[in-house]
Amino acid sequence: MQLDALLAVARGDEPADLVLRNARLVNVFSGAIEETEIAVFAGRVAGIGAGYQAAHSIDLRGAFVAPGLIDAHVHIESSLCMPAQFARGVLPHGVTTAVVDPHEIANVAGAAGVGFMAAASRGLPLEVVVMAPSCVPATHMETNGARLDAAELRDLLDEGVVHGLAEVMNFPGVINGSRDVLDKLAAFAERKQDGHAPGLTGKPLNAYVAAGIGSEHECTTVAEAAEKLARGLYILIRQATNAQNLRPLLPLVNASNNRRICFCTDDRIPGDILDEGSIDFMVRTAIAHGIDPITALRMATLNPAEWFGLHDRGAIAPGRRADFVICDDLQDFHVRQVYAGGRLVAADGLLLPAVELPAPAIPPQVGSSVNVAWDRVDFRVPAHGRRMRVIGALENQLVTEERLLDALVVDGAAVADPKRDLLKMAVIDRHTASGSQGLGFIQGFGLQRGALAGTVAHDHHNLVVIGADDASMWAAARAVADMRGGIAVADGDAVRARLPLPVAGLMSDRPIDEVRRAYDALIAAAAHLGSPLHDPFMAMSFMALEVIPKLKLTDQGLVDVEQFKIVDLFVG
Amino acid sequence: MQLDALLAVARGDEPADLVLRNARLVNVFSGAIEETEIAVFAGRVAGIGAGYQAAHSIDLRGAFVAPGLIDAHVHIESSLCMPAQFARGVLPHGVTTAVVDPHEIANVAGAAGVGFMAAASRGLPLEVVVMAPSCVPATHMETNGARLDAAELRDLLDEGVVHGLAEVMNFPGVINGSRDVLDKLAAFAERKQDGHAPGLTGKPLNAYVAAGIGSEHECTTVAEAAEKLARGLYILIRQATNAQNLRPLLPLVNASNNRRICFCTDDRIPGDILDEGSIDFMVRTAIAHGIDPITALRMATLNPAEWFGLHDRGAIAPGRRADFVICDDLQDFHVRQVYAGGRLVAADGLLLPAVELPAPAIPPQVGSSVNVAWDRVDFRVPAHGRRMRVIGALENQLVTEERLLDALVVDGAAVADPKRDLLKMAVIDRHTASGSQGLGFIQGFGLQRGALAGTVAHDHHNLVVIGADDASMWAAARAVADMRGGIAVADGDAVRARLPLPVAGLMSDRPIDEVRRAYDALIAAAAHLGSPLHDPFMAMSFMALEVIPKLKLTDQGLVDVEQFKIVDLFVG
Repeated sequence: MQLDALLAVARGDEPADLVLRNARLVNVFSGAIEETEIAVFAGRVAGIGAGYQAAHSIDLRGAFVAPGLIDAHVHIESSLCMPAQFARGVLPHGVTTAVVDPHEIANVAGAAGVGFMAAASRGLPLEVVVMAPSCVPATHMETNGARLDAAELRDLLDEGVVHGLAEVMNFPGVINGSRDVLDKLAAFAERKQDGHAPGLTGKPLNAYVAAGIGSEHECTTVAEAAEKLARGLYILIRQATNAQNLRPLLPLVNASNNRRICFCTDDRIPGDILDEGSIDFMVRTAIAHGIDPITALRMATLNPAEWFGLHDRGAIAPGRRADFVICDDLQDFHVRQVYAGGRLVAADGLLLPAVELPAPAIPPQVGSSVNVAWDRVDFRVPAHGRRMRVIGALENQLVTEERLLDALVVDGAAVADPKRDLLKMAVIDRHTASGSQGLGFIQGFGLQRGALAGTVAHDHHNLVVIGADDASMWAAARAVADMRGGIAVADGDAVRARLPLPVAGLMSDRPIDEVRRAYDALIAAAAHLGSPLHDPFMAMSFMALEVIPKLKLTDQGLVDVEQFKIVDLFVG
Repeated sequence: MQLDALLAVARGDEPADLVLRNARLVNVFSGAIEETEIAVFAGRVAGIGAGYQAAHSIDLRGAFVAPGLIDAHVHIESSLCMPAQFARGVLPHGVTTAVVDPHEIANVAGAAGVGFMAAASRGLPLEVVVMAPSCVPATHMETNGARLDAAELRDLLDEGVVHGLAEVMNFPGVINGSRDVLDKLAAFAERKQDGHAPGLTGKPLNAYVAAGIGSEHECTTVAEAAEKLARGLYILIRQATNAQNLRPLLPLVNASNNRRICFCTDDRIPGDILDEGSIDFMVRTAIAHGIDPITALRMATLNPAEWFGLHDRGAIAPGRRADFVICDDLQDFHVRQVYAGGRLVAADGLLLPAVELPAPAIPPQVGSSVNVAWDRVDFRVPAHGRRMRVIGALENQLVTEERLLDALVVDGAAVADPKRDLLKMAVIDRHTASGSQGLGFIQGFGLQRGALAGTVAHDHHNLVVIGADDASMWAAARAVADMRGGIAVADGDAVRARLPLPVAGLMSDRPIDEVRRAYDALIAAAAHLGSPLHDPFMAMSFMALEVIPKLKLTDQGLVDVEQFKIVDLFVG
């Protein structure tokens, strides 16, 4: 965009591309509704007020025009879709900017994965602001696909790929001043650094903030959020598929502190995006909770723009991006139309057919990410004892319990015992074909027979399998590998449902509605095999995450997270 | 500061330098008052909360601790003091950061002058954030001491001397897309750009904002400020010596828009700083007007920190600068003590004696700035007509009137006529010794005899003289030159009062209280000669400013500002 040309339109000397007339502009600066006109040129707002001429003019008949919504923190990979199809999902809900952390693909493909996500986001009507994954790998007790040290992160910054540092999950490393963590913070000292420190309080919280971390999206209670806000962290209230903090945290919001509060979705599966929405759902819910609409919208627009220093958006004002949400009623806030960069891109819940969603070719580092040493895979668990440490999964929670249970031993091997909901679990290195694998047992998945397998397993995203018998586990695991990554349900030799995720083993290359149908079919297949969980695959994807207590399984073995070490399966 | 060491203190593993106990912390994030303790280390806040050990601990007995105040826009030169003595003036009033525009010295000494102000600010307990003067010279209708084009401004940015672009006064140039102005904006595209556009509204305002300007401190009415705020400009409410916008603009402030409002002083003479205060006076006045204290303080702390991206201050939080204002009552807000960088620097209105105020040597470009071709100076005005264009000065206003009056002619020359308050005025190039001089007549200064002269004359800061007779004008002008710049009052051959300003002809090298006494003596001397103005020197300093209507005098001659051209003295 030439500034000269924009100025000529702003002055009224040249016609705008578009004028929205009879608009009720939601002014997030003043907090007022303005009945006015909005002139757009070259994707930007040129002017506000009467008297602009334009090639194209639309009478909004008094509809509200709010700034495009900003998702302050989201992992696109959790939508199981590429950025273009994520955009198809969220744009109709008014999200025009997503601040993304490509943490999942970074664990698979490193800087190449981050670069791929940035490339796959270019040219989309959704603005994707990429943050640098700060903690790859999560710990030393796993095999993952890549390591991102401070130098590589700085390269991503220097190359203009990333805007800041994404959620710094290694909060003990920050607090204790670990050299590698401080190096990463130093590389981003002039940039925004998002936090992730569930439950942190008091002195350790002071240290975390003193290090330069500026936001937090892991709060679960008002007390926790209030303390973190008072120490200077922006609070990003999260409403994910699995972590639903919105309603518990809305009582935090008041007239005096709301400028420091934003909304984010973190992780949402396609069905939630398509049925419930995204940031628009959070705005709606906040308004229904009694928060005034302009405050609710500020948390979705101006506030995240200020936190991230994205001063070209977050408000409708001259020179800013012409990203608009049109709705007829601020109280129910149902998004009727969405403009991105001055262009109408979605209406009545659907992307307009004319909108192109370019998707790049998938490079080999990203497209051939499943590398398993099958000759070394062995699901047999020799019974080296009688009592075992068993992972106790809890529905809708990432934390697990450690349960000490008697093994069911057959032919000298511990086996699954579906009558006690005791299933076998395996985590297999799928990055380096090292043959590294961890074996254990888990309760809470409820399968009476068959097995689930998938390559979505936070954060290392190894091949994880949970099953009632070894044959089903083999079938499910091989099905996943045959798809170059994905999720599968098997019953004996038969594969009952599958969702290919050939992009890093994390994302589909298909349209979001197709992904959603396949995912629904997976859930139905698991239910048919006895699982009572509403989403056993999301649940499974966190059973290998060795940074969240208490007992988890990686390819290195069982991890006691509180002790932060590998422990034996058998205790006696 | 080593981050490792700060983290160790924050964690509680190492003692702090200082702990303030029994504090009532004014939390500008949450809007609440916290009864707590504040641990300080290496000039930063290390932690908030109980349980910190320290070498030194102070019981505040329940006093309030607010963040150090930020003056969002000020010309230090207007204090007639060097940065160190300006610091002596404002620190006891709680101002710990000043965002300064060295526009005056830049007009005298260019980039060297800007660099000098930055150098003279280093090592002070006052944090001085230097912005780049954007409009040097103001117009082509003057001779000034330097020209700063986009390339030189970019050099200042690259060298780390400046933080952003100071008030872009050439708003017609912005709006009309003048190449040289757009080049300057482009050089600072990633930085903050302060505005200055009195009265701008509607489409031209849209264009000004679209160009990237982000603030405005020239508003005089609530309606003007409300429109500019709604378009996205931060509103810096100003309370200068000559432009007092605070009370008229306080009704602008409400719960919904106050986050976009800051305080600034722009230009204050020493007496006002010492007697009335600075930003603290604005906070006090706002509270007295009924604005709640935390909102008032936010406009002086967090808001300017956010606008300028100064994320290491503006709030009391871990990692931020330990700049504190201590007071016993938030309603009257009298600053009792001031901490800057963790150190007690002022108490009970005075800088502590132990605080050093380093001042650099004055380089030749700055110290020998008065260069007049005396052999070409001639105050005689040949009577080329009968009626003259006369400048009509209005007390407390920068705008003037054009008055058409009959000349008093003696020996073929137009002369002053004190009976009609018609004085002669001269503006003499004092930068390049070119011999360029403008002559005219002015009403409103009231001298019955004698003359005033000074080298403070916005923006070019030439030698300006106003007098009742040529002998007095000569004596005053020569006295100023003999001091290498300054202000003088003469009566015939006798110099009645003088204030040397050898630093660029703008600033004294003496302590602020001494400067203040000399300035008071100048005003008394002018009053003795008949001037009814409360500050004839401030008034005189704006009579040569050819960007503010209607009629002004530069060394090039009389300027009709509305026509933006030089006009003849005689009209017939």
